[in-house]
Amino acid sequence: MAATTVSNKRVILKRYVTGFPSEEDMEVVTAEAPLMAVPAGSEAVVVKNLYISCDPYMRNRMTHHEVPSYVADYVPGEVLTNYGVMTVISSGHPDFKAGDLVWGITGWEEYTMIDNPESLSKINHPDLPLSYYTGVLGLPGLTAYAGFFEICKPKKGDYVFISAASGAVGQIVGQLAKITGCYVIGSAGSDEKVNLLKTKFGFDDAFNYKKELDLDAALKRYFPKGIDIYFENVGGATLDAVLPNMRLRGRIAACGMISQYNLDNPDGVHNLFYIVTKRLRMEGFLVFDYNEMYHRFEEEMAAYLKEGKIIYVEDVVVGLDAAPAALIGLFTGRNVGKQLVAVSQE
Amino acid sequence: MAATTVSNKRVILKRYVTGFPSEEDMEVVTAEAPLMAVPAGSEAVVVKNLYISCDPYMRNRMTHHEVPSYVADYVPGEVLTNYGVMTVISSGHPDFKAGDLVWGITGWEEYTMIDNPESLSKINHPDLPLSYYTGVLGLPGLTAYAGFFEICKPKKGDYVFISAASGAVGQIVGQLAKITGCYVIGSAGSDEKVNLLKTKFGFDDAFNYKKELDLDAALKRYFPKGIDIYFENVGGATLDAVLPNMRLRGRIAACGMISQYNLDNPDGVHNLFYIVTKRLRMEGFLVFDYNEMYHRFEEEMAAYLKEGKIIYVEDVVVGLDAAPAALIGLFTGRNVGKQLVAVSQE
Ligand SMILES: NC(=O)c1ccc[n+]([C@@H]2O[C@H](COP(=O)([O-])OP(=O)(O)OC[C@H]3O[C@@H](n4cnc5c(N)ncnc54)[C@H](OP(=O)(O)O)[C@@H]3O)[C@@H](O)[C@H]2O)c1
Ligand SMILES: NC(=O)c1ccc[n+]([C@@H]2O[C@H](COP(=O)([O-])OP(=O)(O)OC[C@H]3O[C@@H](n4cnc5c(N)ncnc54)[C@H](OP(=O)(O)O)[C@@H]3O)[C@@H](O)[C@H]2O)c1
Repeated sequence: MAATTVSNKRVILKRYVTGFPSEEDMEVVTAEAPLMAVPAGSEAVVVKNLYISCDPYMRNRMTHHEVPSYVADYVPGEVLTNYGVMTVISSGHPDFKAGDLVWGITGWEEYTMIDNPESLSKINHPDLPLSYYTGVLGLPGLTAYAGFFEICKPKKGDYVFISAASGAVGQIVGQLAKITGCYVIGSAGSDEKVNLLKTKFGFDDAFNYKKELDLDAALKRYFPKGIDIYFENVGGATLDAVLPNMRLRGRIAACGMISQYNLDNPDGVHNLFYIVTKRLRMEGFLVFDYNEMYHRFEEEMAAYLKEGKIIYVEDVVVGLDAAPAALIGLFTGRNVGKQLVAVSQE
Repeated sequence: MAATTVSNKRVILKRYVTGFPSEEDMEVVTAEAPLMAVPAGSEAVVVKNLYISCDPYMRNRMTHHEVPSYVADYVPGEVLTNYGVMTVISSGHPDFKAGDLVWGITGWEEYTMIDNPESLSKINHPDLPLSYYTGVLGLPGLTAYAGFFEICKPKKGDYVFISAASGAVGQIVGQLAKITGCYVIGSAGSDEKVNLLKTKFGFDDAFNYKKELDLDAALKRYFPKGIDIYFENVGGATLDAVLPNMRLRGRIAACGMISQYNLDNPDGVHNLFYIVTKRLRMEGFLVFDYNEMYHRFEEEMAAYLKEGKIIYVEDVVVGLDAAPAALIGLFTGRNVGKQLVAVSQE
């Protein structure tokens, strides 16, 4: 049987990025797809990509690092890769068969040949929207869950502050904090997002940080008793304003610092001596270290979603042509909720 | 019996301090001593001060704080207070009697009436130098012990870096780290101090940070595999240089940030994103939270000292007239080892 050639639209990195990324740093090209049938003897699988996730850490992979970074650099001319939801078209691996729904690392393209299918996971809750496996049931969900419970060690009644609170991770942290019995306030970059936080995600309060000229004063107003837990997504000036407003023995989960990702010289944070005087713990974490927790998380989160105890807002753009703009939109706050790309609606 | 009046030399705060402190911010005056006999019915004790401790945190107490700081501000015109070693002259308290040797909070003066003698501790190892209770058996010792074991959670083989390493706290941290089986390097501000670290305290290596134009490069040279534990005494540029040189899951015990204490606007620290990517834990602590651990610590440390397993270097100035210069000398690195004042040799 002769292999038919199929065309494969894909997003490649055009050049390494410095500073703020632009659509021109990527290119949408059409190439030849991989073989639609796995060659005999190979354990690879071929997948059709349904949804791909846009995540802030991809920016780091677009930089050329002299000293290797915590994730591998993308290579100019090659397809971008990240987590996605896929359907298996052809499989040489005993654990997968054509028609299986899976999620894991794939290419920003229509079809991908995956050589290490052990890295893929089955979709255990296909009754929920499949796209959730790029978000609330995928990496952002596990990030929120591990970061909040393992790093923040929340107690009922704790005062919790979340930055980038309406985003892929933040909206989940806030809802988990409410379920835990915390008092939760989030900041976000538009009134629409603030409204979502208050009306849809059940935050106790929320504010638009772009309208607050004095962030320290805002935090004092919103947290007259101080902050027990800060879930840090933003870094820089936000962290600096939070530090003096922490309570004794407060905890800062350092999840990300998106305000710094496009800066050649990161901002200085001045208020670190409060870590001593207030006996704060600031701890960084990466979701990749919590894989062994995934199954427990998936079951718990799927149950919350089915019971309506957690609501998830997605920002879906359609088609790979829209993917570069969606990715860079993370850094201007264009996304409302979890940003993802529907590659194929099938 | 008529009370005799005795003169009492004392060091008072002359005015609140901004910026770098100077001797002129304090004044050595002679006042009338408290009664040498405790009035009937009072539970106070009167002590004669033998040794008083000079500690960096006293600088914070010389600032006028609008919002209360973590320790009370000193009051202009009033005597400075801090930890010292004293002999009881007269006691109205059932737990103390004349002749007892004690340590605790006292005045920077010859004689002090202490209204809450419950705050004082007996000297349990008078066979060791009494002055040790301002240092290795006092607050600096407990700071090193609690900070190193409780916050750093060291393991054999860990790579440990200590700043202000020859000081009151640092020299003990380094020796405890060696006892634990760690590889230990310290930084200090003179060749004499570096020499002490290497020859007397048994550090594996040490360097003079004032001679290193590029601290990042120095750390890369001294820690080619990176740092597991950073015992932070200095803050600012030192912390910034340490962060990229930490190893995965490294721990930073935020003990103090002396380079920042005299600055109106603290320096910015730029490399905090490494807390995320290297999954670091940075945790502040105050020795005052570890009082309940003191007894265990005292016995363990006294044994180390008696066995010669820990050596302690002190910098003793004689007489209260020399106290203001000794205190401000902490901020220029004048002290070699633990700075203290011998008020009376008796
Ligand atoms: N540690 C981990 O393993 C891990 C895993 C996933 C994500 N993360 C981190 O978690 C954070 C949130 O990620 P996410 O996936 O949930 O993204 P997201 O919040 O859905 O999208 C990014 C959001 O960040 C905000 N933002 C962008 N630039 C900003 C700036 N300069 N200052 C302040 N806010 C800015 C924008 O929201 P506003 O409109 O509200 O400003 C934007 O919508 C990121 O820092 C990411 O790197 C970490
Ligand atoms: N958390 C707590 O409960 C607690 C308790 C006690 C002490 N501490 C802190 O621990 C640290 C050490 O205290 P210590 O009592 O052991 O004092 P110390 O080290 O005996 O004396 C201070 C030393 O700091 C160094 N130093 C001064 N200014 C500096 C600057 N601008 N940059 C770099 N180094 C500078 C000098 O040493 P070099 O010549 O080596 O520069 C000086 O000798 C301080 O930050 C202190 O606040 C905290």
